[in-house]
Amino acid sequence: MKLELSKIGSPFLMELKNEQGNSCLIDASSAIGGTNQGFRPMELLAGSLAGCISIDVLNILKKQKVEIQHYSVRIDAKRKDAVPSPFEQIHLVFELKGEIDLARLEKNIQLTIDKYCSVAVSLDPSISITFGINLIEK
Amino acid sequence: MKLELSKIGSPFLMELKNEQGNSCLIDASSAIGGTNQGFRPMELLAGSLAGCISIDVLNILKKQKVEIQHYSVRIDAKRKDAVPSPFEQIHLVFELKGEIDLARLEKNIQLTIDKYCSVAVSLDPSISITFGINLIEK
Repeated sequence: MKLELSKIGSPFLMELKNEQGNSCLIDASSAIGGTNQGFRPMELLAGSLAGCISIDVLNILKKQKVEIQHYSVRIDAKRKDAVPSPFEQIHLVFELKGEIDLARLEKNIQLTIDKYCSVAVSLDPSISITFGINLIEK
Repeated sequence: MKLELSKIGSPFLMELKNEQGNSCLIDASSAIGGTNQGFRPMELLAGSLAGCISIDVLNILKKQKVEIQHYSVRIDAKRKDAVPSPFEQIHLVFELKGEIDLARLEKNIQLTIDKYCSVAVSLDPSISITFGINLIEK
């Protein structure tokens, strides 16, 4: 896997590009002079976890031929109040609309976190990954 | 830290948004039906590491009043050939143009990886993070 990160603005604005040409902006916290024009690296890290789990979940629902009218994930992450400040907990709330079997979905998400998500197994095991599910009624 | 991830296309296209309204697309691998319209989650993870280290490096150079005319990082990441497939190694090549003290920069990058980068300390310690530096001549 190859990517390129380039500084495109001062003092910290950078652009991340993958081999397919997709692009994403990264910026520092405003506390040290960032200008809120891009994601902070720790935001991208939390987002990558939610994305990885979601691809597994969407793939499982696809295989089960479950149609969904809405899919989103709210991410709420807590960092250690120190330098450095790694994640202590990443909490995800999955919001879906469709003919969902709640118990089955819950089991699948837990299994994905524990066994199948490559981002989750790349994280420090001390980080607690928790989740809730919100099924949207018609 | 709060973010939202929403499915915006089929089968896997999602949009990640932070509280400042920055946005980034996430997609699955084409092997399972992804359409190359966004970053794969593991790409975002590797990018977040390069971004985090870079903010520290740029901040240190700023404090040292070193002006740089170019700053980029090539990211080359190796994943385990299995399911799941976490990172085994993330190699970064820093490319800079400016009045750089190479030995000092090398020491600062190593220190950032080992002690100050919140993304690095959020990763599984088994992942090897290595780097090279390429100083661009005039």
